[in-house]
Amino acid sequence: MSAPGKEIDFYFEFSSPYGYIAAQQVDELGKRVGRQVNWRPMLLGPVFKVTGQAPLVEVPMKGDYSKHDFARTARLHKVEYRHPEKFPVGTVAALRAFYWQGDRDPAKARELAKALYKAYFADGIDISAPATVIEIAGGIGIDRAALAAALDDPAVKERAKKEVEAAIAAGVFGSPFFVVDGEPFWGSDRIPMVEEWIRTGGW
Amino acid sequence: MSAPGKEIDFYFEFSSPYGYIAAQQVDELGKRVGRQVNWRPMLLGPVFKVTGQAPLVEVPMKGDYSKHDFARTARLHKVEYRHPEKFPVGTVAALRAFYWQGDRDPAKARELAKALYKAYFADGIDISAPATVIEIAGGIGIDRAALAAALDDPAVKERAKKEVEAAIAAGVFGSPFFVVDGEPFWGSDRIPMVEEWIRTGGW
Repeated sequence: MSAPGKEIDFYFEFSSPYGYIAAQQVDELGKRVGRQVNWRPMLLGPVFKVTGQAPLVEVPMKGDYSKHDFARTARLHKVEYRHPEKFPVGTVAALRAFYWQGDRDPAKARELAKALYKAYFADGIDISAPATVIEIAGGIGIDRAALAAALDDPAVKERAKKEVEAAIAAGVFGSPFFVVDGEPFWGSDRIPMVEEWIRTGGW
Repeated sequence: MSAPGKEIDFYFEFSSPYGYIAAQQVDELGKRVGRQVNWRPMLLGPVFKVTGQAPLVEVPMKGDYSKHDFARTARLHKVEYRHPEKFPVGTVAALRAFYWQGDRDPAKARELAKALYKAYFADGIDISAPATVIEIAGGIGIDRAALAAALDDPAVKERAKKEVEAAIAAGVFGSPFFVVDGEPFWGSDRIPMVEEWIRTGGW
């Protein structure tokens, strides 16, 4: 079993369907294994520059399969899912809002992450514009004006950029991506393996 | 539950570690759900020409992760695994031998597939050369001279090529890849989902 105080690093991109599906399961996973989950949004754009890859849905053959599998995997896990009309979208505003809020109140930042995911993947709202992120944040009680100012703050931009760089430095090349005790796991379908790894101490 | 006579199409490439790992599990899966498994080797090279992708291990970041995960996934499933010194290798001779044998005795062709996989991923043998494929086939009682002649036979080459084309036409873009009742599943980690799909009739 896990040592007390250890975390599950949960990396995800706000425009990632599998990240969204994992986000509905990861806190329950943490409870089952007695670990805090460290929500760490990142951006796939800078990752793709390193890996030379493209968004899943743009890859011939794989793209059609992926769209089919997003919805199928969501249904399997009883997660509401509507493939967004505009997909993927830029999520830098969502990223900056998350880390700004996270420095103030991590629980509220997780609530914001869930609200952003729900808006994009269940309610059909394009979350790329800062104004939309501010509106969604306001809807869960975050100060709109303070967030609007933060999204223009170079220090907040730098803070978010450093997180993306840290994710890449940690080897994160996809979404979702989990790191437990230095061990990397890629994909929402690896959650059972993450759990087994923590329970057994690895194999 | 599955209707009698229905099959699981199991597509794989002989140079694919996840295909090898799935090959150790797929017949048991078939038994559990009462379905025949139709072993259908293919080639990833022609697939990558369509998708514009590269072998996993050649992708920055993903490559290192993959090599780590091949071995980790094999250990989880208690499958012997030694990452081949030369990887990936061309498997067209293995492919042709399989389909030639399959037209004569499908059970023996499956035995050949398992022997080729074991040679490459457990015993450290480069299986790309026709002579090596013939030697491995001879070791399980297949006629060496007849196979050697078959590997030079244009009709056998055409037969194998058609299978690769059929796989691509069926939407197969990776290895392993399963199709059950028209439903596609990509990846060895999707075997539990394939099983659930068959048991429930889909969701």
